[in-house]
Amino acid sequence: MGENIETVRLGILGCANIARKVARAIGLASNATVCAIASRYKDKAVKFAAENGFPTSVKVYGSYDQLLEDPGVDAVYIPLPTSLHLRWAVMAATKKKHVLVEKPLALHVTELDRILDACQSNGVQFMDGSMWWHHPRTAHIQHLLSANAIGPIHFIHSTSTLRATPEFLENDIRVKPELDGLGALGDLGWYCIGASLWAKDYQLPTIVTALPGAARNNAGVILSVTASLLWDQPNQTVATIHCSFLSHTSMDLTIGGSEGSLHLKDFIIPYQETSAFFDFTFGAKFVDLHIGWNVRPEEVHVATEHPQEALMVQEFARLVATIRDCGSSPSSKWPEISRKTQVVVDAVKKSLELGCKPVYL
Amino acid sequence: MGENIETVRLGILGCANIARKVARAIGLASNATVCAIASRYKDKAVKFAAENGFPTSVKVYGSYDQLLEDPGVDAVYIPLPTSLHLRWAVMAATKKKHVLVEKPLALHVTELDRILDACQSNGVQFMDGSMWWHHPRTAHIQHLLSANAIGPIHFIHSTSTLRATPEFLENDIRVKPELDGLGALGDLGWYCIGASLWAKDYQLPTIVTALPGAARNNAGVILSVTASLLWDQPNQTVATIHCSFLSHTSMDLTIGGSEGSLHLKDFIIPYQETSAFFDFTFGAKFVDLHIGWNVRPEEVHVATEHPQEALMVQEFARLVATIRDCGSSPSSKWPEISRKTQVVVDAVKKSLELGCKPVYL
Repeated sequence: MGENIETVRLGILGCANIARKVARAIGLASNATVCAIASRYKDKAVKFAAENGFPTSVKVYGSYDQLLEDPGVDAVYIPLPTSLHLRWAVMAATKKKHVLVEKPLALHVTELDRILDACQSNGVQFMDGSMWWHHPRTAHIQHLLSANAIGPIHFIHSTSTLRATPEFLENDIRVKPELDGLGALGDLGWYCIGASLWAKDYQLPTIVTALPGAARNNAGVILSVTASLLWDQPNQTVATIHCSFLSHTSMDLTIGGSEGSLHLKDFIIPYQETSAFFDFTFGAKFVDLHIGWNVRPEEVHVATEHPQEALMVQEFARLVATIRDCGSSPSSKWPEISRKTQVVVDAVKKSLELGCKPVYL
Repeated sequence: MGENIETVRLGILGCANIARKVARAIGLASNATVCAIASRYKDKAVKFAAENGFPTSVKVYGSYDQLLEDPGVDAVYIPLPTSLHLRWAVMAATKKKHVLVEKPLALHVTELDRILDACQSNGVQFMDGSMWWHHPRTAHIQHLLSANAIGPIHFIHSTSTLRATPEFLENDIRVKPELDGLGALGDLGWYCIGASLWAKDYQLPTIVTALPGAARNNAGVILSVTASLLWDQPNQTVATIHCSFLSHTSMDLTIGGSEGSLHLKDFIIPYQETSAFFDFTFGAKFVDLHIGWNVRPEEVHVATEHPQEALMVQEFARLVATIRDCGSSPSSKWPEISRKTQVVVDAVKKSLELGCKPVYL
């Protein structure tokens, strides 16, 4: 298929595992195409291109700089370790490339602000690589929440856990302080915090508290942490989050309102690609004598034509094309969500460092 | 049906709503029978007896003292407001009546200890009215946990919430400081704390912390509270609990181990009487490219011949009969579980009073 005028040409900086998923997603997206891949080692890039079935028209570079100099590249996807985001996202923005950056974005919000400033001053779109925002299930639930379908939200609980192998705990970049210093808080807690903010319509909480019982490795990287967030407005809402490299896979999200509740078992990565579901319970009461319930959770299924990561790429490419072809300004929606998420990540980390004292935002 | 030698004759002190459920349960239990009902107002007791279909052989008393003097009564069920438990449970024990007391048991553990001491020194059985312990689903899961089916437990989360009506929030005994001063923490948190202790084989946590965002009514009674518990042994386990009179009905319990996880949506009161289920997930991983899961939760169904409250009565009556007919000593199992639950309830309350500071047990 030839490229049409709206197609956004993406370069990929680095051959991380997650880049395979996103490369496939770019292939599935109707308005984007992979046009270049770079690695510090050209052999790795060549191998990645072959393994992912890239056509020969895709350029293969042995350095990130070379890819960023390519005028045929509209935008870059950056799946590098967190500590390299600042350098390469800023560099990309300076070269007028729009940036889609893997989460976690930065080691702290000051670093992220330098990235966001670079994007803004260069007029390029910024988005982080959280895929679940883009699933139609997410939009469906957001619609329910906006319509006040479960009443004011009182409680949110989410988990993001995976059982890391001994090898992961020894060697993965996510447990190396110089590469991904936020550990499980950045890699997994990012989702829980994002989901809590999303449920509260992106309002920042007023108090963030890490809870006793966090685990760190010998280098001080967080392997497991639990935290609570509190909102005072428009009504009091408490969220608890738990993220861990030590526990069996879980991706639970529960939102409890005064009139109903929602539960997702797989909010970050749906069980399957073509459809996802959530439990919706409304008006549950006990029957006479309290010997059972009047209703049970209803499974609401939401089909999707494309997997969520392809929808993410499509949304990113749509924004990029609007800027490139129509002279629009970058959308502030995604950078703002990313920044708020980072602010809360930082607050959990700070609370931990203060011995689980509350941090006021 | 005539009473056989093993039948335990129960008197009911008070006509609370929950007494209707337990009266029915006594009728369903194979080894127990209602033999007396007392209210401070005899008319109420007469009405209760009629409405619950008690045969005319059931004695109806206009005072608790009179019921306790009845030599035909083996044991009493006490569904009175919490603040009356001390007086009437101790009185019952003194009169050599075994006691089944509704939860929450006492306003603090010192009070509970006076009840437990009275039971012990009078050789009578004590049990609290938590019904879910007695469901075969609970035993089934306990068996799985004992067999290390999900590996070491890292995380436990439970909720117990109900959306109280404005009338409840105005008039119910559970929001009156002089009747049930622990509010939602006692009425609902009792279950979450009990379930967390149960999952950890009844080991007390080392740190208990209330989280910011508790709600109280004008009289200071807790309407909503979130808390975390931490165990250090044999491995670090964090539990979060959330109980509230302000939120839609929920009774979630999640137990996350290193190799698998369990989830119950209705752990306190099963959706239906004849069978209950839980989700069991083991060895969940993402498929290649992280575009889905290799397994989904398995729904494990556990049938029960009798509802859990009838099984509770049967277990209580079995212990009572063993003492009465065989000269056994009272079992320490149930009083110990009740006491540990109360200790953690007290710790959450203390942490709240200290402004959410950690309380070390």
